[in-house]
Amino acid sequence: MSTSISPLAPTHVPDLPAIAGVRLATAQAGIRYKGRTDVLLALFEPGTTVAGVFTRSKCPSAPVEWCRANLKGGKARALVVNSGNANAFTGKTGRAATKLTAAIASKAAGCKPGEIFLASTGVIGEPLDATKFAPVMSGLAERAQPGDFYAAAQAIMTTDTFPKVATATAKIGKTTVTINGIAKGAGMIAPDMATMLSFIFTDAAISAPALQALLKDGVADTFNAVTIDGDTSTSDTLMMFATGQAEDCPRIARASDARLNGFKKALHAVLANLSEQVARDGEGARKLVEIVVDGAVSKASARKIAMSIANSPLVKTAIGGEDANWGRVVMAVGKAGEPADRDKLSIWFGGIRVAHKGARDPSYDEAMVSAEMKKPEIFLKVALGMGKGRDRVLTCDLTKEYVAINGDYRS
Amino acid sequence: MSTSISPLAPTHVPDLPAIAGVRLATAQAGIRYKGRTDVLLALFEPGTTVAGVFTRSKCPSAPVEWCRANLKGGKARALVVNSGNANAFTGKTGRAATKLTAAIASKAAGCKPGEIFLASTGVIGEPLDATKFAPVMSGLAERAQPGDFYAAAQAIMTTDTFPKVATATAKIGKTTVTINGIAKGAGMIAPDMATMLSFIFTDAAISAPALQALLKDGVADTFNAVTIDGDTSTSDTLMMFATGQAEDCPRIARASDARLNGFKKALHAVLANLSEQVARDGEGARKLVEIVVDGAVSKASARKIAMSIANSPLVKTAIGGEDANWGRVVMAVGKAGEPADRDKLSIWFGGIRVAHKGARDPSYDEAMVSAEMKKPEIFLKVALGMGKGRDRVLTCDLTKEYVAINGDYRS
Repeated sequence: MSTSISPLAPTHVPDLPAIAGVRLATAQAGIRYKGRTDVLLALFEPGTTVAGVFTRSKCPSAPVEWCRANLKGGKARALVVNSGNANAFTGKTGRAATKLTAAIASKAAGCKPGEIFLASTGVIGEPLDATKFAPVMSGLAERAQPGDFYAAAQAIMTTDTFPKVATATAKIGKTTVTINGIAKGAGMIAPDMATMLSFIFTDAAISAPALQALLKDGVADTFNAVTIDGDTSTSDTLMMFATGQAEDCPRIARASDARLNGFKKALHAVLANLSEQVARDGEGARKLVEIVVDGAVSKASARKIAMSIANSPLVKTAIGGEDANWGRVVMAVGKAGEPADRDKLSIWFGGIRVAHKGARDPSYDEAMVSAEMKKPEIFLKVALGMGKGRDRVLTCDLTKEYVAINGDYRS
Repeated sequence: MSTSISPLAPTHVPDLPAIAGVRLATAQAGIRYKGRTDVLLALFEPGTTVAGVFTRSKCPSAPVEWCRANLKGGKARALVVNSGNANAFTGKTGRAATKLTAAIASKAAGCKPGEIFLASTGVIGEPLDATKFAPVMSGLAERAQPGDFYAAAQAIMTTDTFPKVATATAKIGKTTVTINGIAKGAGMIAPDMATMLSFIFTDAAISAPALQALLKDGVADTFNAVTIDGDTSTSDTLMMFATGQAEDCPRIARASDARLNGFKKALHAVLANLSEQVARDGEGARKLVEIVVDGAVSKASARKIAMSIANSPLVKTAIGGEDANWGRVVMAVGKAGEPADRDKLSIWFGGIRVAHKGARDPSYDEAMVSAEMKKPEIFLKVALGMGKGRDRVLTCDLTKEYVAINGDYRS
């Protein structure tokens, strides 16, 4: 939708290696967009395990309900993702569309519908014409090849201004395994989950229950610690597929297995990288904002306060205006409802302490702080002085472009 | 701050009669603004009772703390309000400023500091120079006269584009009493409380505890049912002063006294009128949005869902873009976390049902709905079909002007 790339886009895009047991293909199904790919098929070798975390919305999309049901089987042979239409709030038609899509895909992939996973992103409430998948699906399955994760990330974009990919490797026993991830985000981004869609692929051999535990653990301080606008999509989906095709890879049954220690770190790095990219591509974002709250009574309390700051339109517009308006940070701390004492509160912008113990810092230098605010990355720290709880969230500023993008998105 | 009046401003401004026992004066103290009044003094006859409800912020402003402490006495002789500086997050200096202001005012009013009430609105975190009140205070007290509530409402404005006043009368026994109210709002408006500052004056004779009960009850569906941006000020203050000077007015001790029935209705009307004006003057607002949620499991659940819709940036930007994007309403219902069932959900824009039982309404007519969305007042209704809980909140759209106002406010 957008034409100009976010100024916060990563300057370096890594080459993603192929993952043994994963083949990818994209196509133009004409769901909504013209002249671009809008459907992704990922095929997995038999034995691939799957895990997923989804939106906590009480009104989830049809594909989310589909995936939740299939997750119980723990096995995946294919993933179909389309952009342009979220197939959310589409009632019986929506359920029929997921069923039809899965039927088309299972035929092309030669597997059961219960091994097919689906995700859709785009407009809510418009019926998804799943018959559009039929003409492209067998071609997709035939063309599917190890490798082009960047093209996969492109096919699932909506208002994103750049494709989001990340990669890492880890040792499990003596075997090096690879973790690749793709994501799309941009708006309607808030925990829980943070991104609308993200998919992680690995050639490690990990049981479905262990994979689920790893994913759930990994998401807490990555995707669930990112917010763009406090709005939660009906379609938020993060799935992980483990093919077990890495050569001589030990099969891991339990998440607590010590051989997974390196893998956990690598997975965390991929999730953190992707979720930061989502914040960097927040709709209309001109600044990436990192918020650290420490001295709270608990980590959960620190998270609540950090999110209150991150979701405050007044804090976000001030940052957009390059104004170190720490009074609004105080406001956001105060409205979080968590234990806080004004007279113990200190606030930093970009490492400069602007408020200390309930008042403006005596050494406050507006010019110095203003220079800090002109940077594309803003670091905001709040020390509460109440306890040892600490947390960190990422967000972006609120700009006129956000309003423009979302005032004109559908019409 | 703003130069053009909100297009949603009331077309008719009522003449507010004098209230026996209330005298008003305004002045230019030069707190922050030039060429406009920025301080209001209200003087009350001895015997005036007082009630107040305040921000639930954990970091309240110094004047809020001052008023809370004095409220215990139940008696008021003067109210001093300034605009331009909120005296919030100003630590010891802030407390000293309230003390000094009260000392200056109590000298001018000839009463104890404990009978002085204070409110400040404007920038947070800047020390308030209370010595600026000294040169104007005795003049204010000398000039104070029954009557000019409109000028009083003007003196307390910040980013407001119009002064907010309302009036009503009621019978208590055989006596007609008057209720006048003034308010300022515009941004950083969310429950609880909704407005930053509002003051209600009446010549009824009501005990302080009864007055407090009436005010608390009256605010729930008025000021606390309005949100502009979900941000809660450190300074939110609603106070009510009852002089008891209406001729032959019965003295009412208890809020449950049946003689107050008419008064309660009139008070509700004044609070509802003022709080609606606050929504009409939301920063950058071009549309007043009324949101009704019914069929929730309880009124509290309906309120939570209505607030989730009212505070969603995506719903608000869509309305600003005159787009009946009901999919975002579904999103906001879903993220509220309250009991909801997509397949029972119906949504109306301006009386036109756009979604029914989990899908787009079969009779959906985009052109008809689009015409509705062009109106300055948008009525949005959600029926959940879960129970009998119903609630109503007011908000406004989110526009580029909001971002502009709040990106440039301080600098």
